[in-house]
Amino acid sequence: MSQKIDRPKEACGVFAVYGHPEAVKLNYLGLYALQHRGQESAGIVSSDGRTLYSHKGMGLVGDVFNEENLASLKGHLAIGHVRYSTTGSSMLKNAQPLVVEYSRGTIAIGHNGNLVNAKILRDELEAYGSIFQTTVDSEIILHLLARSNSASLQDNLVETLKCIEGAYSLVFATEDQIIGARDPHGFRPLVIGKLGDAYVLTSETCALDLIDAEFVREVEPGEMVFINHKGLRSVKPFKKPERQAMCVFEHVYFARPDSILFGENVHEVRKEFGRQLAREFPVKADMVIPVPDSGNSAAAGFSQESGIPLEMGIIRNHYIGRTFLQPTQLIRDFGVKIKLNPIKKLIEGKKIVVVDDSIVRGTTSKNRVKGLRDAGAKEIHMRISCPPHKNPCLYGIDFPSKEELIASSKTMDEIAKFLKVDSLGYLSLEGMLQSVKHANKNFCSACFDGNYPVKFDTRLNKFIMEKSREKLLDKIK
Amino acid sequence: MSQKIDRPKEACGVFAVYGHPEAVKLNYLGLYALQHRGQESAGIVSSDGRTLYSHKGMGLVGDVFNEENLASLKGHLAIGHVRYSTTGSSMLKNAQPLVVEYSRGTIAIGHNGNLVNAKILRDELEAYGSIFQTTVDSEIILHLLARSNSASLQDNLVETLKCIEGAYSLVFATEDQIIGARDPHGFRPLVIGKLGDAYVLTSETCALDLIDAEFVREVEPGEMVFINHKGLRSVKPFKKPERQAMCVFEHVYFARPDSILFGENVHEVRKEFGRQLAREFPVKADMVIPVPDSGNSAAAGFSQESGIPLEMGIIRNHYIGRTFLQPTQLIRDFGVKIKLNPIKKLIEGKKIVVVDDSIVRGTTSKNRVKGLRDAGAKEIHMRISCPPHKNPCLYGIDFPSKEELIASSKTMDEIAKFLKVDSLGYLSLEGMLQSVKHANKNFCSACFDGNYPVKFDTRLNKFIMEKSREKLLDKIK
Amino acid sequence: MSQKIDRPKEACGVFAVYGHPEAVKLNYLGLYALQHRGQESAGIVSSDGRTLYSHKGMGLVGDVFNEENLASLKGHLAIGHVRYSTTGSSMLKNAQPLVVEYSRGTIAIGHNGNLVNAKILRDELEAYGSIFQTTVDSEIILHLLARSNSASLQDNLVETLKCIEGAYSLVFATEDQIIGARDPHGFRPLVIGKLGDAYVLTSETCALDLIDAEFVREVEPGEMVFINHKGLRSVKPFKKPERQAMCVFEHVYFARPDSILFGENVHEVRKEFGRQLAREFPVKADMVIPVPDSGNSAAAGFSQESGIPLEMGIIRNHYIGRTFLQPTQLIRDFGVKIKLNPIKKLIEGKKIVVVDDSIVRGTTSKNRVKGLRDAGAKEIHMRISCPPHKNPCLYGIDFPSKEELIASSKTMDEIAKFLKVDSLGYLSLEGMLQSVKHANKNFCSACFDGNYPVKFDTRLNKFIMEKSREKLLDKIK
Amino acid sequence: MSQKIDRPKEACGVFAVYGHPEAVKLNYLGLYALQHRGQESAGIVSSDGRTLYSHKGMGLVGDVFNEENLASLKGHLAIGHVRYSTTGSSMLKNAQPLVVEYSRGTIAIGHNGNLVNAKILRDELEAYGSIFQTTVDSEIILHLLARSNSASLQDNLVETLKCIEGAYSLVFATEDQIIGARDPHGFRPLVIGKLGDAYVLTSETCALDLIDAEFVREVEPGEMVFINHKGLRSVKPFKKPERQAMCVFEHVYFARPDSILFGENVHEVRKEFGRQLAREFPVKADMVIPVPDSGNSAAAGFSQESGIPLEMGIIRNHYIGRTFLQPTQLIRDFGVKIKLNPIKKLIEGKKIVVVDDSIVRGTTSKNRVKGLRDAGAKEIHMRISCPPHKNPCLYGIDFPSKEELIASSKTMDEIAKFLKVDSLGYLSLEGMLQSVKHANKNFCSACFDGNYPVKFDTRLNKFIMEKSREKLLDKIK
Repeated sequence: MSQKIDRPKEACGVFAVYGHPEAVKLNYLGLYALQHRGQESAGIVSSDGRTLYSHKGMGLVGDVFNEENLASLKGHLAIGHVRYSTTGSSMLKNAQPLVVEYSRGTIAIGHNGNLVNAKILRDELEAYGSIFQTTVDSEIILHLLARSNSASLQDNLVETLKCIEGAYSLVFATEDQIIGARDPHGFRPLVIGKLGDAYVLTSETCALDLIDAEFVREVEPGEMVFINHKGLRSVKPFKKPERQAMCVFEHVYFARPDSILFGENVHEVRKEFGRQLAREFPVKADMVIPVPDSGNSAAAGFSQESGIPLEMGIIRNHYIGRTFLQPTQLIRDFGVKIKLNPIKKLIEGKKIVVVDDSIVRGTTSKNRVKGLRDAGAKEIHMRISCPPHKNPCLYGIDFPSKEELIASSKTMDEIAKFLKVDSLGYLSLEGMLQSVKHANKNFCSACFDGNYPVKFDTRLNKFIMEKSREKLLDKIK
Repeated sequence: MSQKIDRPKEACGVFAVYGHPEAVKLNYLGLYALQHRGQESAGIVSSDGRTLYSHKGMGLVGDVFNEENLASLKGHLAIGHVRYSTTGSSMLKNAQPLVVEYSRGTIAIGHNGNLVNAKILRDELEAYGSIFQTTVDSEIILHLLARSNSASLQDNLVETLKCIEGAYSLVFATEDQIIGARDPHGFRPLVIGKLGDAYVLTSETCALDLIDAEFVREVEPGEMVFINHKGLRSVKPFKKPERQAMCVFEHVYFARPDSILFGENVHEVRKEFGRQLAREFPVKADMVIPVPDSGNSAAAGFSQESGIPLEMGIIRNHYIGRTFLQPTQLIRDFGVKIKLNPIKKLIEGKKIVVVDDSIVRGTTSKNRVKGLRDAGAKEIHMRISCPPHKNPCLYGIDFPSKEELIASSKTMDEIAKFLKVDSLGYLSLEGMLQSVKHANKNFCSACFDGNYPVKFDTRLNKFIMEKSREKLLDKIK
Repeated sequence: MSQKIDRPKEACGVFAVYGHPEAVKLNYLGLYALQHRGQESAGIVSSDGRTLYSHKGMGLVGDVFNEENLASLKGHLAIGHVRYSTTGSSMLKNAQPLVVEYSRGTIAIGHNGNLVNAKILRDELEAYGSIFQTTVDSEIILHLLARSNSASLQDNLVETLKCIEGAYSLVFATEDQIIGARDPHGFRPLVIGKLGDAYVLTSETCALDLIDAEFVREVEPGEMVFINHKGLRSVKPFKKPERQAMCVFEHVYFARPDSILFGENVHEVRKEFGRQLAREFPVKADMVIPVPDSGNSAAAGFSQESGIPLEMGIIRNHYIGRTFLQPTQLIRDFGVKIKLNPIKKLIEGKKIVVVDDSIVRGTTSKNRVKGLRDAGAKEIHMRISCPPHKNPCLYGIDFPSKEELIASSKTMDEIAKFLKVDSLGYLSLEGMLQSVKHANKNFCSACFDGNYPVKFDTRLNKFIMEKSREKLLDKIK
Repeated sequence: MSQKIDRPKEACGVFAVYGHPEAVKLNYLGLYALQHRGQESAGIVSSDGRTLYSHKGMGLVGDVFNEENLASLKGHLAIGHVRYSTTGSSMLKNAQPLVVEYSRGTIAIGHNGNLVNAKILRDELEAYGSIFQTTVDSEIILHLLARSNSASLQDNLVETLKCIEGAYSLVFATEDQIIGARDPHGFRPLVIGKLGDAYVLTSETCALDLIDAEFVREVEPGEMVFINHKGLRSVKPFKKPERQAMCVFEHVYFARPDSILFGENVHEVRKEFGRQLAREFPVKADMVIPVPDSGNSAAAGFSQESGIPLEMGIIRNHYIGRTFLQPTQLIRDFGVKIKLNPIKKLIEGKKIVVVDDSIVRGTTSKNRVKGLRDAGAKEIHMRISCPPHKNPCLYGIDFPSKEELIASSKTMDEIAKFLKVDSLGYLSLEGMLQSVKHANKNFCSACFDGNYPVKFDTRLNKFIMEKSREKLLDKIK
């Protein structure tokens, strides 16, 4: 299915296990729980102490792996990765974890995030004779690692990570250990769990729940953890940045509601977003309807704060086959009904509050509003549980360019008009940041306020990089 | 994915279009909207007025069809079918619609329901020289049709349908017309829609919504509709039975909440079930949590009646690949968490009402309760939006045998103990039937009260038939 | 690969085993050895004494079967079938063996040959209420069998076979026996072998060689053999026809050179064809080159008789993938070089005799001649090891229609001119029939002389039947 | 099919086109004609002057490519590669051409041959910070190229090729040119052809025949050709080695008989091998039978020299599906009959000469002899058209280790006894080298006489390298 969805896409999810006889199967389940973070490719690399085994493929975890290839992945340690990527089987080479041979032996890497100095590093590495076979940042990291001459793998890794800037939550596997690392700003999540004596690293705690592992703590921003037969050893070799910069949008949209993220439960944070939204943009209405499933939590908060009843008034079709053809390819635009259908009888003649997590280009929201209007809604009040998106993300979230973000060029009134809603309310930046218990300054909200915590060469802004990357992609595809 | 789910399975969904240049593509979309009624095989047969074209396959609509095979299905009329079936590629031959040549030409059939005299008819037909290539009831119907000697196809069909007893909502296609038929008791739904001048027949109205077709009316119990270039012609050749017997379980579980079924919106009926349930089994609690998505509507009703806040406290994983391996095949029983994970932080220390649509064997519910208990729930009050299931269905729903139905052998107290819930409440039969506006006597509630509206030879009860069928299956597989 | 080859196609090959613990695996190997008789679908039906198991698929034996599906076919008896068919996955339903339920239980059938009264029988059966789900003759046979009311299966079968006319070598399987039958004229081969105590039936003896089975004898024309735990029982219930009519073209082209066919080794018969051809059309030349591999044996005979050295001067490419695209689809016509390339250095400036088995439309031969001319051949003398093809086959070989057969409308001179050869010689009918030791009158040579041994309604000639069949195909596809 | 064949395997075939609007399709056909040089993976990289496009896959050319992916490969220049490799889909990454980004842009490489200093170069490169993602020599070449700092691509390439030792016939593609290079010893073939104005490079001339291109000349040992819009430019930057060392085994077995190789037609050379063999080992016999197809040419020579008639007495089964299961996996060893079956009737009671190209381990030959003996051969005289294989090849042919080569440890008498033949004759080294018109000293015959033309570190002999490679393979698999 090559469905174009008007929705930000998260780069990736990572998962790793050390010290369990069923490490690979646990990794498989872990990746399944992280599937919402990337649906285009999946991979696992395992080790039995001597040899690294790898299997990767395009598609969902449940499609990439089967009993046979899982059985071929031996060992008591494993790292895994799910990612989204531009489609095309030829892009299999970009699937992670990436495994290479270098002077110290074999190493595998899985990466969630986006480097801001990738282009510069790549140019420099090429100038010094490196050849690139993929277009992913992870390959840059491995080249740097291979060129480092320090005495130990740890020193090499520290030296390497000091070269890279931007967002990274990394897992590595060598023959006998797994390593986790999180950038000093802590953009992307990475947590530590335990299952008996085995250690687990994962992007989100929902993957711990699935395997009945215990949530221990986050890998701290700027922390590296080396996990082997001696246990877990923590290293914090980096200078602390002025402030941390955890991605607030993980709370708004990406993370699963049942995860604990940056110290708080996502569902509860979202409910608080909804409550605050109800306070900031009160309205008289018959019911609150979430856009399922991403609007569910905020809608519950809105309903509870406002006293307006919550109704699951939009039905989601859960069955989409692998090659499902979009109606637009068939006859004409059936809008978003293919996935979401409003319950006419419920909505007819009613004043409704629709709660969604965000608006990107605005076209999907517009279609949804039309669907509700066609279903007979008398008034439609749209409430968005985050501020307007005005800027692209440089740290690993695939927003469209500034020009395509509706809020970067249109006023609130213009957007409301465009969407054809009776009223429109976005959660305020302050309201959003107050709703998370962490001090405000610890979050990155650059996509809302343009305040980018990690400097980048403006000549090499995200879209230049993107472009160069695409050119590259074209070249190597 | 060969996931064994402790859940009743609906036999099928049917869809048909007459008089549209894009009949096949509309049929494709229609089947997609009916996918919840059957996920194991899908098929479409079309006609351009002279020739019938057919494509069928195992799997989801979105997997069975692609641009190429859809393009090969020509014509302005089409019928389609989704079904569940025992797994195994060899069962492709049982996929519907079934197409055959007989003395009058070519005819295709799609069937939703279950005949109670299938075994007898099959034996008799074989005695008279019929050969059977599939194990589906539809083949019996076609044999009867082929042996009928009446002057017209209509007479033949009437003669044929008079021979069969039980539940059937049927669609037929010949070179130049589509035909719909619903058994006199009206067990399974079948409705008529219009899209411009084109006619549509479908199991549920949600399929009309998807293609922007207008809902006209139900095909009435005992009605046949012949649709061709002259329009729709209705025939009611059958003697009225003592009472109608629409399947109330369609309202409880099978149908999609956005459908209008037997005259009422499913979501609203379910909400009323929930309200009534709250009246019958009130409880003090912190929140009402539905088992998503089938418990959503009833939970909303329960919440609104009781004033206890509604929370989407169980998160559903939407990504299951085609070959997803169950954890039980992997390590040990992770229960139902693979699909549903409770939000610990929300539930911890709380008194919760869990609303589910039904309990069949009880094992799945038990796992869910355990998951909630592990998540820290202080009290768990389970509320079921229908009465206890004590009897198998003979009319097309794949319940387990009486012995396996937990409510057929255990008291309420014993079930509550088995599930380890603090309290358990099933909606009463009266409460359920009052909640649907139709007169009670029009519904079949045999699975609850054992009152089977269509007589069947007790020596040939469902499980004998089933068994014989399985034996057959074995033989021909 | 949807390669259109200018070559007659044999309908089918059949194979059966009774009384071996590895019956299915032997059947798999047997079908592989018969693969030259049909490459479009393959199937095996086995029985363990109680239940019939079936697996069929489109493609080569080695593609249709794998360890898993072979393992699912249990039992000590099995029948198998390879066939060619019009392409398209939808035609899977026509793959054999066909298995059906009828009043006596379950029966499977595999058929090689073509009935001349298929159309009449089918019409009649339909008139009496039969429904047809495939377009193969085998289904007619099963319908007749199911309608027969005799006391025993044997009587039923005899009654059935007495109704059908034309060419048939049949294998049947029931729960506990296999049955072989060959039509009274003996058009198609069918032989009996033994492997220890186990019995084998097969179209050709080369399949016995592969499994190290011993060749016992042919199933005689008009003979039926019933093989079960009591051993083999022979029945000859049919009136002897005026003469037998074994297909001489099996010797010319279809059968494998290592088979013993109708009492003689195919290679030796073909060598004798070649010798006779050299006597009938002597020529002075530098070398004899066969069109590989079908011309190999006759070329050897020609070389030995004439004393002109044999050279394998045309190289065959053995590697053609499943979806190989023809050059014509790519750029322009590279003729037949894609499969066969002449050795330039060998041919340059030489006078060559090219020996091929037959000419059908003439286009392929013309291309080959061009290729040899381009390679520098000074003189090209084409010798064909059978008489000119002037008539279609009604008994199971897929020749084109009379109009398309080049020899039906062109004289020898015209054909030579069309092919651009320096001389052309076809083996004479007498020469051909003398070369086989059996009395001439025992062979069918209708495709050469139009002398059809089994009468057929001229209004229902092969092409009418074909047409009706195609129409049907269209209808049901 | 993972058939273990007792037969040397050639590493690869390469093909390249410059200056044709259908370059990719020509490349597809070219690879198809070179399929005998490698059946495990295939790939094409094309360029439209700005961007490189690539598609690679496991399997035959006809399976890897389809209309869709061929259409995605744009441009007027293309290089392609077929290779054998250890099985396993994970080895896709080793499929060639390899494409990388480096400081000068993008470059693709296809390699036929084997480097003798690969291990040393790889270690050194890793020591200087290179990371390896594949286990093929080509990646070493690209790393060296990327590290070269010369002013032009040509200088870089020369510098790179001066570092590598052993056998290489290389094709490169950049955005706007193709480049061919052949090592100074000329181990592997590489020729130049023209199709109108377009240039072609190919391993063998049979690929030129297929696309109707003209054979111009060989790329000379030590020559590089740069082909772009200005035409072909030849460079010979290497010091001439003491002697050339063309692989004589290409003539014996690998190359196709219709190719012109190292200045001579392969078929004619083989025939001369056969003639010489008849002179060296005369025998009285009834017929000469080649092991098809590799023994065909030599057998013709033997027959013509000896006057003993040539018979194609062993029949080859051409139909092997992709997943064909070996009989050994099924029941027991049916020897080689699965592919080759002798014609009993022909052989029975006869004295036969069997001509084969070579004996490696001896087990396959032994099975064949047994098959012929079972078929009734009275005397079996085996004649091999090359000397005994006593040494592994270091230059690109996959022989087994010295220990496994039957001739390295057994005398002629012992081998004859092992094979159970009545007599055995190997062509003498002198006889073989006299049969090729080139001066003897220009050929490499190390596999026969151990005279390796390119020195290699004995500590790093082929099997050490192999082992290290396998270890690596294991690690990265």
